[in-house]
Amino acid sequence: MSIASTDTEPAVSSAKSREPLVDVDVHEGIRSLHELRPYLAEEWHMYFNRDSVARIPPKHAYAHPHGGIRLDLVHEDNSSDDQFPDRVREQLLEGVGVTHAVLLGTFPNSLSGMPQGKYAAGLATAYNDWLIENWLNLDTRYKGSIAVASQQPQLAAQEIDRVAGHPSMVQVNLPMTSPYVPWGHEMFHPIWEAAVRNDLRIGFHVCPPTGIQGPPVAIGWADTYMELRSVYSHHFQAGVISLVCNGVFEKFPQLRVVLLEGGFAWVPGVMWKLDASWRALRREVPWLTRRPSEYIRDHVRFGTQPFEEPDNPKHVLDLIEMMGSDKMLMFATDYPHWDYDDPARAIPSHLPADLKRKIFWENARDFYGFSDLPENTSSDS
Amino acid sequence: MSIASTDTEPAVSSAKSREPLVDVDVHEGIRSLHELRPYLAEEWHMYFNRDSVARIPPKHAYAHPHGGIRLDLVHEDNSSDDQFPDRVREQLLEGVGVTHAVLLGTFPNSLSGMPQGKYAAGLATAYNDWLIENWLNLDTRYKGSIAVASQQPQLAAQEIDRVAGHPSMVQVNLPMTSPYVPWGHEMFHPIWEAAVRNDLRIGFHVCPPTGIQGPPVAIGWADTYMELRSVYSHHFQAGVISLVCNGVFEKFPQLRVVLLEGGFAWVPGVMWKLDASWRALRREVPWLTRRPSEYIRDHVRFGTQPFEEPDNPKHVLDLIEMMGSDKMLMFATDYPHWDYDDPARAIPSHLPADLKRKIFWENARDFYGFSDLPENTSSDS
Repeated sequence: MSIASTDTEPAVSSAKSREPLVDVDVHEGIRSLHELRPYLAEEWHMYFNRDSVARIPPKHAYAHPHGGIRLDLVHEDNSSDDQFPDRVREQLLEGVGVTHAVLLGTFPNSLSGMPQGKYAAGLATAYNDWLIENWLNLDTRYKGSIAVASQQPQLAAQEIDRVAGHPSMVQVNLPMTSPYVPWGHEMFHPIWEAAVRNDLRIGFHVCPPTGIQGPPVAIGWADTYMELRSVYSHHFQAGVISLVCNGVFEKFPQLRVVLLEGGFAWVPGVMWKLDASWRALRREVPWLTRRPSEYIRDHVRFGTQPFEEPDNPKHVLDLIEMMGSDKMLMFATDYPHWDYDDPARAIPSHLPADLKRKIFWENARDFYGFSDLPENTSSDS
Repeated sequence: MSIASTDTEPAVSSAKSREPLVDVDVHEGIRSLHELRPYLAEEWHMYFNRDSVARIPPKHAYAHPHGGIRLDLVHEDNSSDDQFPDRVREQLLEGVGVTHAVLLGTFPNSLSGMPQGKYAAGLATAYNDWLIENWLNLDTRYKGSIAVASQQPQLAAQEIDRVAGHPSMVQVNLPMTSPYVPWGHEMFHPIWEAAVRNDLRIGFHVCPPTGIQGPPVAIGWADTYMELRSVYSHHFQAGVISLVCNGVFEKFPQLRVVLLEGGFAWVPGVMWKLDASWRALRREVPWLTRRPSEYIRDHVRFGTQPFEEPDNPKHVLDLIEMMGSDKMLMFATDYPHWDYDDPARAIPSHLPADLKRKIFWENARDFYGFSDLPENTSSDS
C-alpha cells in the first residue's frame, strides 16, 4: 500500500495520480561481481581471478540472525529480486509508488575498506559504468550514487569528475565508516571539492567496518549482531562531529550530506553537547564562526529508516522539535533489506500532514534539487 | 552557593541544618605517585623506578585547551587543592555543602589501560591502601571506590574482596573504556560477582582510552579535544549496550552501575533502538527475558555532570520523561575538573522540587544504600 492512499485520494492504478514519494535509500543488487569484468581496466585483471574476487570487497565479520535481505525477496537459488532493475521497478516504483529511488550500492560502500586502495578505485570506476548501463539508463526514476575509493581521495575526485555529468547521478556514495581517520580530516578535502564543483550531495551509508576501518565499537568488538546494529549510530555521530569540528562545512559551504541508516534520536544530544563544548572550547576551533548545531541543521540530512520507535509515539514529534528543524528527515525504505520500512506503516500516522509531506518528498526535493517535483504551495514556509 | 540556600531555608553556618547533598563524582588527588611506594608489594618495586613511574598509568594523547583542572584550584607550583583532603573538605564539603562525596580517582581508572596487567593489579592494591589511610579514614563523608586492574578480572575480584569490608567503600571504580572487549564479555564476570557478593556498586567513569584500550572513536582518531569530549558518550553507550545484550544484568540481578560523565541525552534513543532490535532479533539473545530498556531503568544510573544543555530548558524534562524514570539521575560536581558543575547553577531551577530532591540525594541514597539519610516523606512514590 502506498502512502498516497492514506494521505490523498484512494490509490488508483496510474502512478501518475499519486503524490510524489522519494526513497533516499534503495540498494541495487548485482548478480555476480564477475559482471564487472567487462568494465574493469586491463591493469586490474591480474587481481580479478576467481580466488580474489571472492575476497572483495572486504566482508564484515558478523553473522545475521535472519540474513540481511527481506525474506520474501530471497529465492530458493539464493538470488534476490534486488538484482533485476525490472523487478525493483515493479515492486518498489510501481508497487509502492516510489517516484524517485536514490540507489546506493552496498558493494561500493565496502570498497573504502580495501587495503589495496588503487585497485579499489579501479573497481569503483568499473562499478559506475556498470551502474549507468544496467540501471540508470533503463529508468530515469533511478538516481545514482557515485562509487569511489575514499582511501584514495585524489582518485575519488577524478572519478567523481568523470561520471558526474550523467543526468541521473545525484551524489557520492560513501560509507559512514571512514578509512583511517574520521571524515573531518583534510585528506578527504578533494572528495568534498569534487562533490561541490559538480553540484552533487554526499550519501553516507551505514557500513559495518571492514578491512582498514578497524573494529565497529570504540574499544573492541561487540558480540551480537543486535549490539552491532545498536552502535551503528556511533559512526554517524563521530562522522558529523568530525566534519563540524574540523570546519569542513566552513571550508565547503555548499556541501550537503545525508546520513542513511544511522537514526536520528541522537541528534539533539549531539547538538547540545557540541554547542556546550564550543562555548567552553572555541579557542581550539577558531575556524568555526557559528554554533555547531547550525552547521548540522544547514548541512546534514537524515534518512528515516530504520525509523525511531519510542514507546510513546508523541516522542517522535518532541524529537523533531529538539532537532530544531522539520527539514532534516527524508523518507527511506532501505529496500530490499530485512528491516525495510514501508511508507504506509513506518512513518507514524499522527504526524501533521505538512511534516509528512516534507519527509516523503519535499525535503528530498530541496536537498537533491529534483526540478521535476512541484514547488511548495503557498501554505508552506 | 549551596543548593540548600535555594531550596530550603537560607544557608546557615552549620552544615547540619542543610539538606543532604550527595556528589557522586569527586576526584581525589595525589601529590606524587611516589606516595604509593610504601604501600606497594616488594615484587613490583623493580618497575617503580623514576623512569617507569613517569609512564604509569598510560597517559591519553590529547592536549587540553585549558588544562583539565579548575583554574582557581591550580597554584603557581602546579599543585592543586584536590591533593589535600582538608582543602577538599573545606571547599566542597563545607563550602558547597556536600554531605556525601563519592571519590573516584583518575589514576585507578587508567590502570585498566596498562599492558602489564599484573603490575597494574599491584598498583591498584597499593592505591586502595593509600586511599583508605589518606582519605577515607579522615572523614566519613568521603566514600571510596575500589581501584582494580580490570584487564585481570580474577585479581580484580580478589582485591575487591580484600578491601570491601572498609565501611566507606561503596563501589568498584572502572573506566567506561574497557580493556580488549566491551564490558558485556564473560571475561569480566568475576568483577561483577565480587561486586554483588560484597554489596558494592560499579562506578564507570569517563576515561580517554589509553594503552591497550585503542583509539577513542570507532574507526580512527578524533583531531581536537572538543571532538574527543563529544564522543565520550559512545564509550558509555557501547558499555551499556554490551552489558544488556550479553545478559549481564540477567546473570547478576543485583548488579547496579552508575555512569559518570557520559551524559544522558543519548539514553532514550539507545533504549528505543535496543527495544526495536530486540523485537526483531531476540532469537539471537534468548537469555534476555525483558525488554532491554527495562534492564537499563533497573540497573543503570547516571551522574549529572556535565549537565545536558539544550537551547530550550524544557527539553530537560522531556528527556527525563523519555527515559521513563525519574530515579536515574544522581547529582555530580566532577570536582576539581575544569567543567565542574555547581549545584546551585548546573541543575535547571525550573525542575520540580521533587525531581531536584531525587537528583540531589534521594536517588543516590537508594542506589548506594546510604542509611544515614532520611527515608522519603509520605508524598513520594
